[in-house]
Amino acid sequence: MIVSISALKDHLDQEVTIRGWTTHHRKSGKIQFLNMRDGSGYTQCVIAIQDVGEAIFEKAKTITQESAVAVTGTVSQNPRNQQFELVVKDLELIHIAEPFPVTNKEHGTEFLMDHRHLWFRSKRQWAILRVRHRIVRAIRDFFDSHAYTLIDTPILTPTAAEGTSNLFKVDYFEDTAYLAQTGQLYLEPALAAFGKVYCFGPTFRAEKSKTRRHLTEFWMVEPEIAFAHLEDIMQLSQSFIHYILECVLADCQMEFEVLERDTEPLKKCLQPFIRMSYTEAVEKLRALGSDITWGTDFGGDDETILTQEYEQPILVHRFPKTFKAFYFEPDPDNHEVVLGMDLLAPEGYGEVIGGGERASSVDFLIEQIAKHELNQEHYEWYLDVRRYGSMPHAGFGMGLERAVAWICKLPHVRETIPYPRMLYRLKP
Amino acid sequence: MIVSISALKDHLDQEVTIRGWTTHHRKSGKIQFLNMRDGSGYTQCVIAIQDVGEAIFEKAKTITQESAVAVTGTVSQNPRNQQFELVVKDLELIHIAEPFPVTNKEHGTEFLMDHRHLWFRSKRQWAILRVRHRIVRAIRDFFDSHAYTLIDTPILTPTAAEGTSNLFKVDYFEDTAYLAQTGQLYLEPALAAFGKVYCFGPTFRAEKSKTRRHLTEFWMVEPEIAFAHLEDIMQLSQSFIHYILECVLADCQMEFEVLERDTEPLKKCLQPFIRMSYTEAVEKLRALGSDITWGTDFGGDDETILTQEYEQPILVHRFPKTFKAFYFEPDPDNHEVVLGMDLLAPEGYGEVIGGGERASSVDFLIEQIAKHELNQEHYEWYLDVRRYGSMPHAGFGMGLERAVAWICKLPHVRETIPYPRMLYRLKP
Repeated sequence: MIVSISALKDHLDQEVTIRGWTTHHRKSGKIQFLNMRDGSGYTQCVIAIQDVGEAIFEKAKTITQESAVAVTGTVSQNPRNQQFELVVKDLELIHIAEPFPVTNKEHGTEFLMDHRHLWFRSKRQWAILRVRHRIVRAIRDFFDSHAYTLIDTPILTPTAAEGTSNLFKVDYFEDTAYLAQTGQLYLEPALAAFGKVYCFGPTFRAEKSKTRRHLTEFWMVEPEIAFAHLEDIMQLSQSFIHYILECVLADCQMEFEVLERDTEPLKKCLQPFIRMSYTEAVEKLRALGSDITWGTDFGGDDETILTQEYEQPILVHRFPKTFKAFYFEPDPDNHEVVLGMDLLAPEGYGEVIGGGERASSVDFLIEQIAKHELNQEHYEWYLDVRRYGSMPHAGFGMGLERAVAWICKLPHVRETIPYPRMLYRLKP
Repeated sequence: MIVSISALKDHLDQEVTIRGWTTHHRKSGKIQFLNMRDGSGYTQCVIAIQDVGEAIFEKAKTITQESAVAVTGTVSQNPRNQQFELVVKDLELIHIAEPFPVTNKEHGTEFLMDHRHLWFRSKRQWAILRVRHRIVRAIRDFFDSHAYTLIDTPILTPTAAEGTSNLFKVDYFEDTAYLAQTGQLYLEPALAAFGKVYCFGPTFRAEKSKTRRHLTEFWMVEPEIAFAHLEDIMQLSQSFIHYILECVLADCQMEFEVLERDTEPLKKCLQPFIRMSYTEAVEKLRALGSDITWGTDFGGDDETILTQEYEQPILVHRFPKTFKAFYFEPDPDNHEVVLGMDLLAPEGYGEVIGGGERASSVDFLIEQIAKHELNQEHYEWYLDVRRYGSMPHAGFGMGLERAVAWICKLPHVRETIPYPRMLYRLKP
């Protein structure tokens, strides 16, 4: 019977076959230890000459790192470490690998990125991408179970949410298209049809940033809710992050061990989040030594400094309108600020969520479009949301890769996605 | 208490508030009937002058189609049709809509597509996109519960799976990128790390086709399985489609009623699928009057003719290598054909799934790349799958929109996606 390595525990003392790849191979006289991986887990196969005979024993000696092998044997539990392993009876060489370029020695980042298609066979990369998958499931389950309708927003767009700078240009037959950097503008019109919606897909920013927080192609989840105000989505973002953390803490213990990720800081995030207005954050930052002045956006360093001060994520709200997009609802109590919010992850990670309440007045929006020197003609369809049953509404976007980087405590987002795309990185 | 319309049934005889949009408004003397929609469902609000008084009654008269309104009243069950409705006590006008352009009269397709952002407020479009969401959930649940790891493959790619024709070109800083038309080539290297993988995201084809089956941007789900052969993925595609159908038949009865979709043909698809080789299919087609000759691909008409002959989907397998991509494994019993398969949906819908077994020999693949006049240099990373632990493997891709069109029995894929992109359609 063919079983996965993760299922060996259910077949103690039974004869089974596993199929996978060799991670390590030790030979010592009349016994060989073959470490195997099949994607579901890792195990050790013990090949004793007395069990398999000389022919099979000699055949096993030819196995190289990353060779594909089918191994048949009896499942036993190693008395020393309690791991389930295979006492080999027979094996089939499916493919003997050429010398594998990614070895245990230190490789440079460029080398690893050039060999990304092989690099993610390493245990660490495997663990990260499994956590990523668990987070994706948690995200979808959260919205699906709270009566949101999935609205897949387009990638190919005729114009830009916030102007065409930082957008990738596409030849669209005789026309020009841009790759969407957000689905928000396309979600808002769906509110009047579905009430609560979300999108979750790849988004694109042609930013020339080379920081540990930037990819040119990344996945973003964006909920949008009719009749919601700033306070509603601040609460929503907290329960949303809580739910994701509960899922990974429950299901990814093994992956966190591989990553040597201390989960205590994540458990502390299950408490209520810190809240402060942008104005309070600026005061706090200046007290901490930053030279930020009121009216300018946080730099990456500011976010790092601020989030290292608290154990919980920080919800910063009410930003100056000066550096925020045209579609924000102004604060009725202070027209200098808009009802935006950012969620900053702790441990120095910074912004993972950005959102806010959207302007619901068509006249106000037309004014803002003019002020931002955008072409109103491109936004008529978007303005229609405010012409036919306008309502208060709010939403946010969470960058998946930043969330993965924080939760796995990675130094760079490039390890959070199977095939990262960056300023100088389009391959493999 | 604010409740959703779908939850009214849980609040019989209670006073609740619903918030939503007006779909229809009838006034008759001392009573008004306000039909409302909030995204979760539809209901009727009964406004009697004796219940609300003259002021509120007069205010209600100003409500136009698509106005946003909060209505407070007592939930009652209409004795005539058993529907839950609201006997109104108070109402708040949130926004009085301008005259709504999409009315009950017949609109042309171009008009509706230009107003897509408003058109999907119609009950029919709402129902389709809810079925779409249910199918997406079923797809993800199927693979997640069968131990597949999600591998999000890149959209921005340096080269093409099958040559650069039909690809959208992107300015990537000083370089050129293409929008991916499949994730398959990126999934295969992940097999040796994860064993069973899938991707599910938007894909792009710059085809100048203007048929009822073509979008330039569409979602595709692609599983890929290590150590799998053609037979395995033929079985997999059957259980996969069965699962999707079970989910929609269980959960989308209301939507199918809105769409007037007879579900009997779908229930018949829960039986084993029809199987025939390409060669048998050609014979069958010629007997049915097609002039197809062995060695050429099916036309859309051929698929229509063939699928109307059977009540179950048809798995066509073993295609001539002449019109298939370079990466297919040849049939060991007949080198004129490759181990590919297509799944054709019944009722004339045709291909929704295409896949097959991938070549596992590096030498064979290098030969095929040369024969197809592709640049081997671009595929070295892909060839690496066969250098380091090569194994038999197979997978398929299902176009989401074609599956939605079939399941909802729609005349055109343009209604299956929130914002369709086609040859002459990039807006809204």
